[in-house]
Amino acid sequence: MLLLRHCRGLTRVGLLKTQRVQLLQGAALPVAVCAGSLCARWGSSHGGHKSGQYQRSHGPNWRHALAGLLAGTGAVLAYGLYHSQTEQAATTIVQPIAPASSLPIYTQDEVTKHRSVEEGVWVTYKGSVYDITEFVSMHPGGDKILLAAGGALEPFWALYAVHSQDHVLEILSEYKVGELSAEDRRKQQSVKSTDPYSTDPERHPALRINSLKPFNAEPPPEILSDNYITPSAIFFKRNHLPVPQVDPKSYLLQVEGVPGGASLSLSLEELKTRFPKHTVTATLQCAGNRRSEMNKVKQVKGLNWGIAAISNATWSGARLKDVLLAAGYRSEVAQQTSHVQFEGLDSDVTGTTYGASIPLNKAVSEEGDVLLAYQMNGEDLPADHGYPVRVVVPGTVGARNVKWLGKIIVSEEESSSHWQQNDYKGFSPATDWDTVDFKSAPAIQELPIQSAITQPVEGAVVERSAEEVTVKGYAWSGGGREVVRVDVSLDGGRTWQVAQLQSSEKGQVPAPSPPPGRAWAWKLWELTAPLPPAVQELEIVCKAVDNSYNMQPDSVAPIWNLRGVLSNAWHRVKVTVKEDEEKQKLL
Amino acid sequence: MLLLRHCRGLTRVGLLKTQRVQLLQGAALPVAVCAGSLCARWGSSHGGHKSGQYQRSHGPNWRHALAGLLAGTGAVLAYGLYHSQTEQAATTIVQPIAPASSLPIYTQDEVTKHRSVEEGVWVTYKGSVYDITEFVSMHPGGDKILLAAGGALEPFWALYAVHSQDHVLEILSEYKVGELSAEDRRKQQSVKSTDPYSTDPERHPALRINSLKPFNAEPPPEILSDNYITPSAIFFKRNHLPVPQVDPKSYLLQVEGVPGGASLSLSLEELKTRFPKHTVTATLQCAGNRRSEMNKVKQVKGLNWGIAAISNATWSGARLKDVLLAAGYRSEVAQQTSHVQFEGLDSDVTGTTYGASIPLNKAVSEEGDVLLAYQMNGEDLPADHGYPVRVVVPGTVGARNVKWLGKIIVSEEESSSHWQQNDYKGFSPATDWDTVDFKSAPAIQELPIQSAITQPVEGAVVERSAEEVTVKGYAWSGGGREVVRVDVSLDGGRTWQVAQLQSSEKGQVPAPSPPPGRAWAWKLWELTAPLPPAVQELEIVCKAVDNSYNMQPDSVAPIWNLRGVLSNAWHRVKVTVKEDEEKQKLL
Repeated sequence: MLLLRHCRGLTRVGLLKTQRVQLLQGAALPVAVCAGSLCARWGSSHGGHKSGQYQRSHGPNWRHALAGLLAGTGAVLAYGLYHSQTEQAATTIVQPIAPASSLPIYTQDEVTKHRSVEEGVWVTYKGSVYDITEFVSMHPGGDKILLAAGGALEPFWALYAVHSQDHVLEILSEYKVGELSAEDRRKQQSVKSTDPYSTDPERHPALRINSLKPFNAEPPPEILSDNYITPSAIFFKRNHLPVPQVDPKSYLLQVEGVPGGASLSLSLEELKTRFPKHTVTATLQCAGNRRSEMNKVKQVKGLNWGIAAISNATWSGARLKDVLLAAGYRSEVAQQTSHVQFEGLDSDVTGTTYGASIPLNKAVSEEGDVLLAYQMNGEDLPADHGYPVRVVVPGTVGARNVKWLGKIIVSEEESSSHWQQNDYKGFSPATDWDTVDFKSAPAIQELPIQSAITQPVEGAVVERSAEEVTVKGYAWSGGGREVVRVDVSLDGGRTWQVAQLQSSEKGQVPAPSPPPGRAWAWKLWELTAPLPPAVQELEIVCKAVDNSYNMQPDSVAPIWNLRGVLSNAWHRVKVTVKEDEEKQKLL
Repeated sequence: MLLLRHCRGLTRVGLLKTQRVQLLQGAALPVAVCAGSLCARWGSSHGGHKSGQYQRSHGPNWRHALAGLLAGTGAVLAYGLYHSQTEQAATTIVQPIAPASSLPIYTQDEVTKHRSVEEGVWVTYKGSVYDITEFVSMHPGGDKILLAAGGALEPFWALYAVHSQDHVLEILSEYKVGELSAEDRRKQQSVKSTDPYSTDPERHPALRINSLKPFNAEPPPEILSDNYITPSAIFFKRNHLPVPQVDPKSYLLQVEGVPGGASLSLSLEELKTRFPKHTVTATLQCAGNRRSEMNKVKQVKGLNWGIAAISNATWSGARLKDVLLAAGYRSEVAQQTSHVQFEGLDSDVTGTTYGASIPLNKAVSEEGDVLLAYQMNGEDLPADHGYPVRVVVPGTVGARNVKWLGKIIVSEEESSSHWQQNDYKGFSPATDWDTVDFKSAPAIQELPIQSAITQPVEGAVVERSAEEVTVKGYAWSGGGREVVRVDVSLDGGRTWQVAQLQSSEKGQVPAPSPPPGRAWAWKLWELTAPLPPAVQELEIVCKAVDNSYNMQPDSVAPIWNLRGVLSNAWHRVKVTVKEDEEKQKLL
């Protein structure tokens, strides 16, 4: 762990210096932590353009360093390669490895069986099969390599572009054990069917899928907190229906119901040019985030989300306020209206579209920052996130951030959609499906204070010799309330320590504090603490506090509700402390 | 419970009748409960003047009743004694310590030279000289002791009456180093030491006093939830300093610092006539409400409030927004300012006034409803509540609702007052007085979700024959977030039932739902449930949920903080279930 912290420190002074120090040390640095800042760059560049620029200015130094690394230990080698790849990622096209006909042919099913160190860890890459079991412990990115176990490497290497270079391929080639069957190779190139979901976009395989159709998935927690701005590819996906195919040229946004105003139709081009472009960094969270913890108390209805149905992105678009003003909205003639409804272009077989609404005062407030967003993380919205236009309602539950936005209706009433009226509401633990009256509870809008531990994960092992443990996570509150503190306990909540908060990418200048009531983005947090002596297990707990001093409830059962929403009790993770072998021998 | 309910019914018919019934019953009625309806009449007066009138017209009845009460049981007797003592505290003069002639004689000039830890900290008290240098670091009131350095203790002890106890004098005597010269003693005596609290108004005897000077008191919980609008007389009092005497004819409110604007002076008459009168029903809560529960976990610093440092009233006055606009406030020229500071007319012996600030966006928001109030519950503000003008900041901690308002300053900075900078902030349970950094936490503004049980009270007895139990309480959340549900448990939190919410006086038409974000008033709640069979004790628990679905934390220890603020864990009350005598005989 000392090494980890060292490594973190180094990343702040920049890539080149980091490498030099490592060369001097020649030690087996666990580099997974150091990869964090690289991902950030990837996240912001999204596709490699900026990475390419980076390579041009620093590449030669890198390669020079790499030559030295190749003579070093295995781990350092891997580390150097790992970094070197990040530069080439943007421009280098990885060459396919030539098939070796003497090796056996495996089906995808056979590969899929090898997903653990015990069963062997197999992966495919460009039609070849690799048994990388022995490499797992040397992987600079740590356990994350197991995310690809039993499947294809390509999508992961696309996310972590550090891999896209020759030296990595050389290492990989040592582990080759066979070829993928011709049929499965063809399948990998995937033929579209008539399935309504057949035009759904491809997704990153790192995502943990809760439902394939409609597509609902979250990133592994250990990836989530690697970046302050979540790369779009691993931003959690929460679709209620198939992803609609929207032609940006014919796209029209309808605005209706503005009292004293006129209906308005806006093309994508008009939305982009008639209104100032406004950018907001905002965290979105599904109401069902952490539902799996409620499921453990008693079965609930809904997707079994882990702790990662939450992500943070920058969003750019027109302000909803400006568009409503353009449609003739005037507060003095709108006394009777109090809601703004949104209809998506996604629909089911009956033609029913997704819909939701928000309070009018949030929509028209100067400080509400509600966007009709056409960009995410600096690029066009991805298909899964609402291309070409979605609503972003900062501080408000994901369900109201309607994607593939087709219509805006100013109204006296809330949206009549199922999702507004009979879903996404909180109830007492005493309420069951026989007694529930959905009218008795308000539709969830602002979400309560939340936090969770992303590292270490449940069941992880901490070496006693490390002497300390680093805990990481995220914290966020709805309604623009800023997270002001995260308390972390290593003993189940008996004693607490205060974590360090992070409100920008690591190594970047921290963003200035947001104005009161407009803290839309999460904070990442981290605590490195001495391992408590003489314990064999840590029960790590976190709880956050926002600037209204709202705090998370201690336990899950008393906030359990039949839909499993609003699961924000203290997050708990148990890890094992492993005594050193030498010490164990002495015992 | 039957007795309690009986008593409540009686309170509606007025004071005299209530007392007669009590006298007739001759039972140990908790009379505090029955005092509820009195307060309405008593409360409408303010300061000593009208109270005097009240006494003249109703006093004899009161005294008569008291005579009867004093003949009652121990509990009732104790109640009378309690008040008798609090009255004496105001007038008792602590006996001087006998001079010890063997010690040296010092002049006031010599004493005055010792005003710092470096030079020594000397003080005088009743003609003796004390070197308290070593005691400074042990002083429970912290650095404030240095205000008296080089001078007399009397004026400070008059302000902080907690010192008027024998053990304080014992501690002081250990530090005696000499006698003040006869000439300087004469000089000190010639300066009439007047009690700065001598002009404080009379208060309602039902109040439970936490501190007499300054006056801090709360109503008994059983009274609190009898009225949706708390009568002014039993509205909790939280004074930091003596109540200032303000002449309404010469009163001037100063408004300063408005960028691009001019300073403004407003008489009381101008405030009432130049600006529209606006009325808001708002609950105020002290940051220290329920501190006593934290004290049980581990000693904290502060007044030992029970659950009733919270009350609800109607407030009328000018909108702060309108006054700032009149002073020239324009949002487009005020980009650099972000706070509005308030200064009270109450001050300590050094002339330091009470002060606090709120964020500018709350002050100028159309929906913030911040008032410069000159009426409480339809009458002039009572002296204890800020006569003639106070700030009412709905949804915000009591401490920012500055009373006896003298000055408003628009500023780039928060108030520099002790109460904004070094008090009224929340910390981790791990933070102690050695490690606390007040700059590391934000000043409390909006308060978190809160609820408590007012009936039955801890230790009450419920008759098994009653077959059911009625539980009552209050629930409120800061920031205009509306309470949407209160869950009540009779078994310590294992199972829950949903309480009925009440948002107006009983029997009145319920008030319409407030606009989103403007739910400033509490909700009272009530649950009548069957007595669980075969239990001898009920552990009644309540927890509330607001419309951001924030919930109260389960337990006190994990939210404990050194100042004992923000105590909002589930409230728990244990009551005994008494089996009927006949049944008991059968057993």
